[in-house]
Amino acid sequence: MSSEHSVGVVAPQRAQFNEPLRLQSGAELPGFELVFETYGTLNADHTNAVLVCHALSGSHHVAGHYADDPENVGWWDNLVGPDKPLDTRKFFVVGVNNLGGCYGSTGPLSINPESGKRYGADFPLVTVEDWVAAQARLADHLGVHTWAAVIGGSLGGMQALEWSLQFPDRIRHAMVIASAPKLSAQNIAFNEVARQAILSDPDFHGGYYADHGVVPTRGLRLARMVGHITYLSDTQMAEKFGRQLRHGEHKFSYDVDFEIESYLRYQGNKFAGFFDANTYLMMTKALDYFDPAYDYEGNLAAALARAKASFFVASFSTDWRFAPARSREIVFALLHNRRRVVYAEIDCGAGHDSFLLDDPHYHALLRAYLENIAV
Amino acid sequence: MSSEHSVGVVAPQRAQFNEPLRLQSGAELPGFELVFETYGTLNADHTNAVLVCHALSGSHHVAGHYADDPENVGWWDNLVGPDKPLDTRKFFVVGVNNLGGCYGSTGPLSINPESGKRYGADFPLVTVEDWVAAQARLADHLGVHTWAAVIGGSLGGMQALEWSLQFPDRIRHAMVIASAPKLSAQNIAFNEVARQAILSDPDFHGGYYADHGVVPTRGLRLARMVGHITYLSDTQMAEKFGRQLRHGEHKFSYDVDFEIESYLRYQGNKFAGFFDANTYLMMTKALDYFDPAYDYEGNLAAALARAKASFFVASFSTDWRFAPARSREIVFALLHNRRRVVYAEIDCGAGHDSFLLDDPHYHALLRAYLENIAV
Repeated sequence: MSSEHSVGVVAPQRAQFNEPLRLQSGAELPGFELVFETYGTLNADHTNAVLVCHALSGSHHVAGHYADDPENVGWWDNLVGPDKPLDTRKFFVVGVNNLGGCYGSTGPLSINPESGKRYGADFPLVTVEDWVAAQARLADHLGVHTWAAVIGGSLGGMQALEWSLQFPDRIRHAMVIASAPKLSAQNIAFNEVARQAILSDPDFHGGYYADHGVVPTRGLRLARMVGHITYLSDTQMAEKFGRQLRHGEHKFSYDVDFEIESYLRYQGNKFAGFFDANTYLMMTKALDYFDPAYDYEGNLAAALARAKASFFVASFSTDWRFAPARSREIVFALLHNRRRVVYAEIDCGAGHDSFLLDDPHYHALLRAYLENIAV
Repeated sequence: MSSEHSVGVVAPQRAQFNEPLRLQSGAELPGFELVFETYGTLNADHTNAVLVCHALSGSHHVAGHYADDPENVGWWDNLVGPDKPLDTRKFFVVGVNNLGGCYGSTGPLSINPESGKRYGADFPLVTVEDWVAAQARLADHLGVHTWAAVIGGSLGGMQALEWSLQFPDRIRHAMVIASAPKLSAQNIAFNEVARQAILSDPDFHGGYYADHGVVPTRGLRLARMVGHITYLSDTQMAEKFGRQLRHGEHKFSYDVDFEIESYLRYQGNKFAGFFDANTYLMMTKALDYFDPAYDYEGNLAAALARAKASFFVASFSTDWRFAPARSREIVFALLHNRRRVVYAEIDCGAGHDSFLLDDPHYHALLRAYLENIAV
């Protein structure tokens, strides 16, 4: 993508919220900070704002790059910019690091005002519902009453869906991509393996590793490796790595034999080098808990009856983490309520991670949908 | 299954092999022991012997129970016994713990004659080819020149296939169930996560944990948890566990919330209590390395040209670890060589583990095939 279509140099901003926030768990945060970025300009009527919600490992840094770190390009830079599908000449785009995150918003790495030490394991579990409640305060802070759209993939899609339920009058379009209305038992099982890898790492120290000057890198590394397998499709792995040997022969040891092993180790090590373990644990729980139909005896259509937004729902053919059938559950529940919904099942080989790629068909659909949003 | 169809009380036997065994890795074992069990009686012509090969966590204890441990029933007891599909009134059935195993055959837990200490990490990696070579010595020991059949599921199926290639004149029927001609990149990836869980456990001590009086239970536990997810089908997990809560509400902690978490922890803990970590590592490598087409530029049909056996190949509709398409690769390669092959794709919801169950359709097929084997 050429630089003329980039939002260019960006800088994170911070917002402080001093009103206590009551969480779904019953715990209360006395106040909190959110770090965010914006791209484009809020119009006079404040009708062109779009919120981009991040998934498990994402952040507020959605597009552009930093002046002092030009390689650090936003995670959805292929989507957001002048003349890109989410066009910053039309929209005022907001990226925010969620509450409990590890990129600068108040979370386990923050100082607990009560103890003067890092929260660590004392940071309360936050949920998708809590994130949306916190994002609503950011909307107020920015002068945005109603989002033109809230968009996200995977766990980000769950936030877009939750916006339509918690604040039906504050969102005109919910764009729910590669997502699901709730996790399956298998989804939870993979999350549980990841959690147990972290919790059983001797360096975890019950979540107070910061007090011990260590980081549970072994656990984080394993968590990321198992997660990564579920982000990619079987066919893509076969095409990209197959049974290619790293050294041209079997080593008859536990060093790297196959390229796929090298790739997974690399991804695991990289992730363990920067991501916070307590945040990771919390994110997986937010995923596990999300289930808008929970209070409606499992009836998703009943749960979605209060949504007023128009919906864009998309899934990817090779995504086995949140397969197309999971998106169709959302679509059927919306149609049951006679909501406007555009649904696309996109033929893309890259599995769950497809939502991050600039597949031409996928991006053409996003562009067409976003072009039709009045501001 | 009523006790009249059980082989009843059984006892393991041992065989010592003093001839050195050259392994595929180039290493040599000066000699080795195999522990095995037999059920039924070898006929006068020695034509009714069937070898049962075990998969990752199986053993020589295939059927019956021990006099002093009546609860310890063989892992394929539903298949083997008088009037069962593998009928011990007709067949002489042999179960063997593979070389490198942890149930009594020579392996990492054995004393290394050179050091007087347990082998631990010094036990050489053994492969499917090595297992079959060792099993051939057991066949000689038992007076079995030619197996009426060699049968196995998963990794056991790979051994049945390997028998047909390494000893084409010593096997009349190869029964390859829920197996694959080689692992996919995704299969290897899951194995690599399991290995890294064990290798990175501080109690692993480079494989010499026995010298330290500890066991890498954390790693083994995680390895089993991730393995277990791949043995079950998504639908079965959904039916069996779904999103059932253990305590009727979200705990907002990392204790057990969902039943599936409880189940996985239980399976992991149980396994870590008895299985040897070095053996587990080795088994996963044997799986990763198996690829009869490797020396034939990936051409499986060319690799299977030397097989002379008749084949029974079966797969299960919901097995995503070794999906039916993987069995069909074997079938197509056999048909290309005009080999006799019976193939069944069985509609069973239990995923990869289906091969261990007594699904009526599956067992009827096994019974019919085995009844037609002349002895």
